[in-house]
Amino acid sequence: MQVPTGEWLDIAAAARLLGRVVDQLTILAPGLLGASVAMAARHFGVARRIVVWARRPEVRVQLETAPWCDAVCLTPEAAAAGATFVVICAPVECIAPLAAQIRPHLPPHAVVTDVGSVKADVCRQAQVAYPPGAAAPVFVGSHPMAGSEKTGHENGSPLLFDRSACFVTPLADTPAAAVDTVVRFWRALGAEVATMHPDQHDEIVAHVSHLPHVLAATLCDLLAGKSPDWRNLAGPGLRDTTRIAAGDPRLWRGILEENREEVLRALRGLQTELEAFHAALANGNSLEVLARLERGKAWRDQLRPRA
Amino acid sequence: MQVPTGEWLDIAAAARLLGRVVDQLTILAPGLLGASVAMAARHFGVARRIVVWARRPEVRVQLETAPWCDAVCLTPEAAAAGATFVVICAPVECIAPLAAQIRPHLPPHAVVTDVGSVKADVCRQAQVAYPPGAAAPVFVGSHPMAGSEKTGHENGSPLLFDRSACFVTPLADTPAAAVDTVVRFWRALGAEVATMHPDQHDEIVAHVSHLPHVLAATLCDLLAGKSPDWRNLAGPGLRDTTRIAAGDPRLWRGILEENREEVLRALRGLQTELEAFHAALANGNSLEVLARLERGKAWRDQLRPRA
Repeated sequence: MQVPTGEWLDIAAAARLLGRVVDQLTILAPGLLGASVAMAARHFGVARRIVVWARRPEVRVQLETAPWCDAVCLTPEAAAAGATFVVICAPVECIAPLAAQIRPHLPPHAVVTDVGSVKADVCRQAQVAYPPGAAAPVFVGSHPMAGSEKTGHENGSPLLFDRSACFVTPLADTPAAAVDTVVRFWRALGAEVATMHPDQHDEIVAHVSHLPHVLAATLCDLLAGKSPDWRNLAGPGLRDTTRIAAGDPRLWRGILEENREEVLRALRGLQTELEAFHAALANGNSLEVLARLERGKAWRDQLRPRA
Repeated sequence: MQVPTGEWLDIAAAARLLGRVVDQLTILAPGLLGASVAMAARHFGVARRIVVWARRPEVRVQLETAPWCDAVCLTPEAAAAGATFVVICAPVECIAPLAAQIRPHLPPHAVVTDVGSVKADVCRQAQVAYPPGAAAPVFVGSHPMAGSEKTGHENGSPLLFDRSACFVTPLADTPAAAVDTVVRFWRALGAEVATMHPDQHDEIVAHVSHLPHVLAATLCDLLAGKSPDWRNLAGPGLRDTTRIAAGDPRLWRGILEENREEVLRALRGLQTELEAFHAALANGNSLEVLARLERGKAWRDQLRPRA
């Protein structure tokens, strides 16, 4: 089948005919997640052309030979030019500024999304930079629940999103067609998409991701105050419960601060439950200790296994 | 090489000549850990003969065809008769009673150990039942830091202890030869042995095992009070941090109650740190949030990887 060339809308139409979701996929700041988006897009044939921009010159040099991208740009603006679909993979505090920075350089109908772990502030700030209008570029927030304590494009994987959950978080007046494009994009990469308001996302993720991170990091911080010998006496349980504490502290500080209110609420909820557990154990309330362990196990037993 | 038969001491001597650690290995109440001890003993040629007792008749029927044991006994006393080395694998609250129950039926020089997650009470109670004396059987506590959220002999593995940590916890007057036998036994199964007082064991394990269990179970208990839909939105981080919450609630209640004082102390220590984290985040003390995440990461980065 011949792909028509020339005018942008023709290429987009041809891409749709070919079953592609997007024509030019642009990835800004590809670390572990951004590289995985690009690798998956290539693997599943989701984009005709993949263009990237990285902040650091040495990363740009590395990416020039990466098989999962076709062009490396010197600026976000250059990478945005000609993009049908942009995925911003920068740390959460940089997402809205980058979205605003590229806005004037985007072609009509372009759809911009991100992979940030916090959505309410990002989506509201981006909305200001993306006023509605015929053929105007649209920002729709995303958050794939995939990743690792590792960082960097060299740790990416084309199957990172396979059977993983992915949030898509439009605001009330986000155009439905753009939301649909973002949903289809993540589905094409293998993810199971849940669409909801950014506020609801932030509450859920505060509990299922940010709170576990605070717990793992704080447990390790407590243990850091004990004898170094203890480290060699840990079993596999501690290794698993603390794995995420190895995540990048600056990235995580950004996430926790960006989602401060919801994280504090979730943490307070857990502190209340820990105090109740402490009281039950201290008071010899054996039935209550058992009931708490049983409710925890029942919930965990229904968590789906790793894909 | 011909193995002499007949009198017990001759067989023990022959086993030592053959490089075996023990002659008759008896396992009481083989679940995941006990079956793994037997499988590993067979795999590494640590025992000439393996005898088991299980409380439940249906388990005894299953074990009759298990390739990792030579005889299944109807009572703990029968399994103890002729044993050079006994490993009690029952829940923590049953270990000292079982040790006392088999004491009159043990041959001279027999060494008894266990795999319980709490040591101080068990070792002190067992010491009462095992008074010192020439050729008297000796109890020495052990705690291999291996296992899983799974239970049952069918989940055992001969390599469960390979490169895992294992505590051996003699009291001040425990005979050194018996301690040495227990240390050599676990080393022969692949474990890295740390010998220390039961009180010190209980403090360490309260922090590196029991506290993480309370955290994982309490996090799951908190999430059990939220929408069931949240479960499908979790990423791999939550799966890992909560894996141990799937452990048997009755076994874990027993462990937490048996080690109550140390668990409460460790939990209080963590609660204090969580409160400090909450304050730092609430007050916008960004440097303090980062410092806590960085100390946690530094500790976790030095934890050795899973064997």
